[in-house]
Amino acid sequence: MKNTFGSSISVTVFGESHGDCIGAVLDGLPAGIEIDRGFISSQLEKRRPSGKISTSRAERDEFQIVSGCFNGKTCGTPLTIIIPNENTRSRDYDYGRARPGHADYTAFLRYAGSEDYRGGGHFSGRVTAALTAAGAVALHALSAKGIALATHIYECAGVRDRGFENYKSDFEKLNNTYFAVLDDNAAQKMQEQIIAAKNDGDSVGGILETVITGMPAGVGDPWFDSAEGMLSHALFSVPAVKGIEFGDGFALAKMRGSTANDPFCIENGRVVTAKNSNGGINGGITNGMPVIVRTAIKPTPTIFKEQQTVNFIKNENTTLAAKGRHDPCIVHRARVVVDSVCALTLADLLASRYGADYLR
Amino acid sequence: MKNTFGSSISVTVFGESHGDCIGAVLDGLPAGIEIDRGFISSQLEKRRPSGKISTSRAERDEFQIVSGCFNGKTCGTPLTIIIPNENTRSRDYDYGRARPGHADYTAFLRYAGSEDYRGGGHFSGRVTAALTAAGAVALHALSAKGIALATHIYECAGVRDRGFENYKSDFEKLNNTYFAVLDDNAAQKMQEQIIAAKNDGDSVGGILETVITGMPAGVGDPWFDSAEGMLSHALFSVPAVKGIEFGDGFALAKMRGSTANDPFCIENGRVVTAKNSNGGINGGITNGMPVIVRTAIKPTPTIFKEQQTVNFIKNENTTLAAKGRHDPCIVHRARVVVDSVCALTLADLLASRYGADYLR
Amino acid sequence: MKNTFGSSISVTVFGESHGDCIGAVLDGLPAGIEIDRGFISSQLEKRRPSGKISTSRAERDEFQIVSGCFNGKTCGTPLTIIIPNENTRSRDYDYGRARPGHADYTAFLRYAGSEDYRGGGHFSGRVTAALTAAGAVALHALSAKGIALATHIYECAGVRDRGFENYKSDFEKLNNTYFAVLDDNAAQKMQEQIIAAKNDGDSVGGILETVITGMPAGVGDPWFDSAEGMLSHALFSVPAVKGIEFGDGFALAKMRGSTANDPFCIENGRVVTAKNSNGGINGGITNGMPVIVRTAIKPTPTIFKEQQTVNFIKNENTTLAAKGRHDPCIVHRARVVVDSVCALTLADLLASRYGADYLR
Amino acid sequence: MKNTFGSSISVTVFGESHGDCIGAVLDGLPAGIEIDRGFISSQLEKRRPSGKISTSRAERDEFQIVSGCFNGKTCGTPLTIIIPNENTRSRDYDYGRARPGHADYTAFLRYAGSEDYRGGGHFSGRVTAALTAAGAVALHALSAKGIALATHIYECAGVRDRGFENYKSDFEKLNNTYFAVLDDNAAQKMQEQIIAAKNDGDSVGGILETVITGMPAGVGDPWFDSAEGMLSHALFSVPAVKGIEFGDGFALAKMRGSTANDPFCIENGRVVTAKNSNGGINGGITNGMPVIVRTAIKPTPTIFKEQQTVNFIKNENTTLAAKGRHDPCIVHRARVVVDSVCALTLADLLASRYGADYLR
Repeated sequence: MKNTFGSSISVTVFGESHGDCIGAVLDGLPAGIEIDRGFISSQLEKRRPSGKISTSRAERDEFQIVSGCFNGKTCGTPLTIIIPNENTRSRDYDYGRARPGHADYTAFLRYAGSEDYRGGGHFSGRVTAALTAAGAVALHALSAKGIALATHIYECAGVRDRGFENYKSDFEKLNNTYFAVLDDNAAQKMQEQIIAAKNDGDSVGGILETVITGMPAGVGDPWFDSAEGMLSHALFSVPAVKGIEFGDGFALAKMRGSTANDPFCIENGRVVTAKNSNGGINGGITNGMPVIVRTAIKPTPTIFKEQQTVNFIKNENTTLAAKGRHDPCIVHRARVVVDSVCALTLADLLASRYGADYLR
Repeated sequence: MKNTFGSSISVTVFGESHGDCIGAVLDGLPAGIEIDRGFISSQLEKRRPSGKISTSRAERDEFQIVSGCFNGKTCGTPLTIIIPNENTRSRDYDYGRARPGHADYTAFLRYAGSEDYRGGGHFSGRVTAALTAAGAVALHALSAKGIALATHIYECAGVRDRGFENYKSDFEKLNNTYFAVLDDNAAQKMQEQIIAAKNDGDSVGGILETVITGMPAGVGDPWFDSAEGMLSHALFSVPAVKGIEFGDGFALAKMRGSTANDPFCIENGRVVTAKNSNGGINGGITNGMPVIVRTAIKPTPTIFKEQQTVNFIKNENTTLAAKGRHDPCIVHRARVVVDSVCALTLADLLASRYGADYLR
Repeated sequence: MKNTFGSSISVTVFGESHGDCIGAVLDGLPAGIEIDRGFISSQLEKRRPSGKISTSRAERDEFQIVSGCFNGKTCGTPLTIIIPNENTRSRDYDYGRARPGHADYTAFLRYAGSEDYRGGGHFSGRVTAALTAAGAVALHALSAKGIALATHIYECAGVRDRGFENYKSDFEKLNNTYFAVLDDNAAQKMQEQIIAAKNDGDSVGGILETVITGMPAGVGDPWFDSAEGMLSHALFSVPAVKGIEFGDGFALAKMRGSTANDPFCIENGRVVTAKNSNGGINGGITNGMPVIVRTAIKPTPTIFKEQQTVNFIKNENTTLAAKGRHDPCIVHRARVVVDSVCALTLADLLASRYGADYLR
Repeated sequence: MKNTFGSSISVTVFGESHGDCIGAVLDGLPAGIEIDRGFISSQLEKRRPSGKISTSRAERDEFQIVSGCFNGKTCGTPLTIIIPNENTRSRDYDYGRARPGHADYTAFLRYAGSEDYRGGGHFSGRVTAALTAAGAVALHALSAKGIALATHIYECAGVRDRGFENYKSDFEKLNNTYFAVLDDNAAQKMQEQIIAAKNDGDSVGGILETVITGMPAGVGDPWFDSAEGMLSHALFSVPAVKGIEFGDGFALAKMRGSTANDPFCIENGRVVTAKNSNGGINGGITNGMPVIVRTAIKPTPTIFKEQQTVNFIKNENTTLAAKGRHDPCIVHRARVVVDSVCALTLADLLASRYGADYLR
């Protein structure tokens, strides 16, 4: 289904970086979900570039909900959000000269030379603003059902954050911070690394860790719509994501079964696991423990350093040093996009399991 | 769509470990693809337990193609493969006592106590035999289009294999070997570790690395059906997979952009990349370089060591030491399943891009 | 999705007339639905040829449920039903000589000469036996929720049946009769017409009328998955169906709005309509009144009379007079297939609206 | 998928009658299709109310293409069309009083009292303007491949149009006329009937007949995505459609096989049928002859005559005589919507069969 994801509650994204607008359609939402415009705005703000560690392209991200909302609530029909584009500078782009690590060349192949290349077109991180707004609707609905979500920068430019200690207070801290790191010391070191890279005309990457609490047990399917399969399918759409792991993920490969397994036990009359190396999912189905997913974000491909590349129109070797306004790091901005994609996927999994009205 | 994956060419799996049979339906295949029964058999053989490093459950895996095949070729209608179950010992299972790390408890939640729990039921690795047979049909069709695929055990029980040196000869070696490791020395050390774990009543995991060569450039979509999103969605269905990365994956998070980017250059008139840290995919679309994906497999959850767990029927704490026949390692057997899942996904991506007749 | 229909509860059909078997996979069924093998058998019996008005091809239709059923109930995983083929006479078919009105020529075009042409292959009415068995599972589940369904031969060979007078007793009569006509007199006249056509080496068609009572109000969507859209999509797959109408259907086109509209009124505290020209559906959504759908079945295309046609292999004009065993009428046999397709579609609509567990 | 239809090329519609705008997203279009804004405008004009036979609500239908279009061509990404709403008079609607034959009551049930009821909300015929604009893109692309489409008013208020005599000239006449009738005499009689109904505060319905020429043979699938199944699924979404038939449709039910079958013959070296009672489709697959589909449109449900109804909020009987601006007939305006829905469905069927690039 290409630009649409989800079975019961689906999201469709559209728009190009330098076109009129970007947007998203949410279909399958139950009627009667409260739309909190203030929350949508605050989520968009977390995605927006800010300060020295981001691009200087400023966008107000004034979103409009043009359908599916009536009297402040969803009315059960497709909810469409549109965010006009502004402050675009198309002259900064040079068609044919492929930015290494970016989609210029593959877009040319995929769309046979008719692609809107301006500012990365449909491949631009700009499209994630629409995902963020749509995700905010889902996050708000999940929250009303006791499902909480937070993402921190687990690692950036090689600097590690501390792990979660108390989900409630840690989530609160993260969801009220622009640079979502638990350890302030680590946050400062990461930002120093970002600025150092920026000064070198270079960029850095990182790893995001998302935790979801309150997710009902028994959601997901073994083949093929496992909780892991659905989340990863959606998350690999977030630009720059190159790896995903659940629970202890790749580290499990080095363990023995006796260490990797999470022993079950009864706690206050409920079945829980004594630890959570499996990230809250067994056999593709949630087990009631927090869902834990980590997402590897490669360094921003557009850099100011000169790089070897080709002009695919002229079919000749050339070099490229980016001009214009670019992020030396998108990890902190990607955080809210990852939150949104997870929320949209969880909403879909829940609606598929219990019917969409579960989310009312 | 639950047990069905793929848009243009889809696979549906069915069956329980101790039921009559397991099977798969392939829909959307073009008419006229040659069905090589010998190749399907040889793929099933690679998945079958063998020697000291596997379970002693012996299955002949005598598959039947009961529809969609006429005169040795696909006839364009759903191709159904059935593999009867035999040599099942249902008495080895004890309902209510959840095996840690396994889906016993989540199946109980998902299917509300009506699940077929015998031998793991539908969650059993047994179902992957059907996927393997279906995948063999896709592999054969891809191969006829010049698309080659091989998976090696990149790491097992902490022991690393060497990397690929020559795709052609390395692929040939892997595709003719039961224990798919490039370095014979590493293979021996891995097997020693497996047997050591077995002797301890324990199990080990590992990482598989798959390389796909000959994949046309320009296949996949940015949102949401990226090559990465589709492959990961399908691969997370393979039992025990907990992490997936493309190209340099998680290691990219530590790099700077100038290192992570793959410079483009012209080689023999064609655009290639000088290295392949992005695993042959930019912006979700294949760029013509080999696609590289690594899959983390956790250690087999069923172990003979005593573990803490619960009886979810009685809602009480208990312990469990597995009886019966179980694999101390499934990494080497999972290899061919990963190959199959990749082949099915690639066939679907190609059919979505060019029409199914592309694969004739 | 080609051979799969339905979003939340889907059915996949497979098999060729002269292959090993035909079958169906039902995916998305909740766990815990009772499987009544006797009822499945009795439904298959209604589809089976019988007496002078049918083909003499005899099939026992011994179905096997090879997955998804445990201890007499669905276990939540795909339920696969297989019906072996027997009593096939492939020699009766002559490849290249297109039967007018049949799919021989279009199958050749669609599958580029690789189609299994024997007995109509995948286009054979034989495949509807699998649909019938799958539909019986859905019918049984709907019935447990108070949803009843019956189809009568509204018209056959120009002879009209009487309309429904009392749904309860009329449904009972129809569901216990092989030749589903309410008025015994009309039934006899229809059968006389069928035999007259048979004696002429010809065939007849008819119209089926299906009524569904007990369907909850508020099911279906305006765009595009309306109750009408979903039912018609599935019903047009039933071989020989060429027209579908809901409520007064085509007759509405001649009415004025004041006649066509169904006035609402309160009856025993519930909103009902005073009549039911809209067939229980307004704006694509059920309104709680009986759903009424009529299906036009063209006369069986395979006839013994000589017809003008072509040999599409030789690309030359020729004639054809069918040999072998063929039905002079399939309207009475199609009845149970229409019931099944309706039941599968309703189950899917309900599961999409309320979650699959609604049907437990 | 609710508000999305199509596998390879899909359309999503959104918007409410009195909301900000209505719109449509087309996904899966190949890059490089020419966008003819003049043609889109002219199609919207055919849908717009005009003269005495329509509502006096005037809308300029100024559409904006906000994504997916670059340099006058599709760029391969979702093409989004938005049409702002204007000239809305929300005061004309009275919530709770159900218009008979309309979706007020079922919308209330479906969306649990949160529906946007103003002007019929999402159920309004207004949404078809977006479908019309999207369909114009598909029509233009089909036309470039030699596939032509036209719909005439086969019957309105009981008055019959003449049949097609010459597809080329008849298509030209229809596609350049607002009131699409072949016989000018019949057109006048129909309009007289419409005005007579209007003067009575009543409304009339009719039947549309669509013919598609140039459709390649071999498109569609037997189960379930037949050409008939896909077209009917989409067409039943058009408001007021209650019946659909292909070729001779319901009339086939009265014929014998020897009359109903279309004999094949060779004409100029090509296989054709001597007549076309099957409407260009055999076994769900196009056979190369013109595709013929007829769509029954019920009379507009909103009428000025007093009708019996209920207030579903107060749960009491009441009466209703519509106020505001309403069409005494929508058959002539529905024509272009039917064209659009057919074009979108054919584009999807072709893209599924041959890949989307077929339509470039």
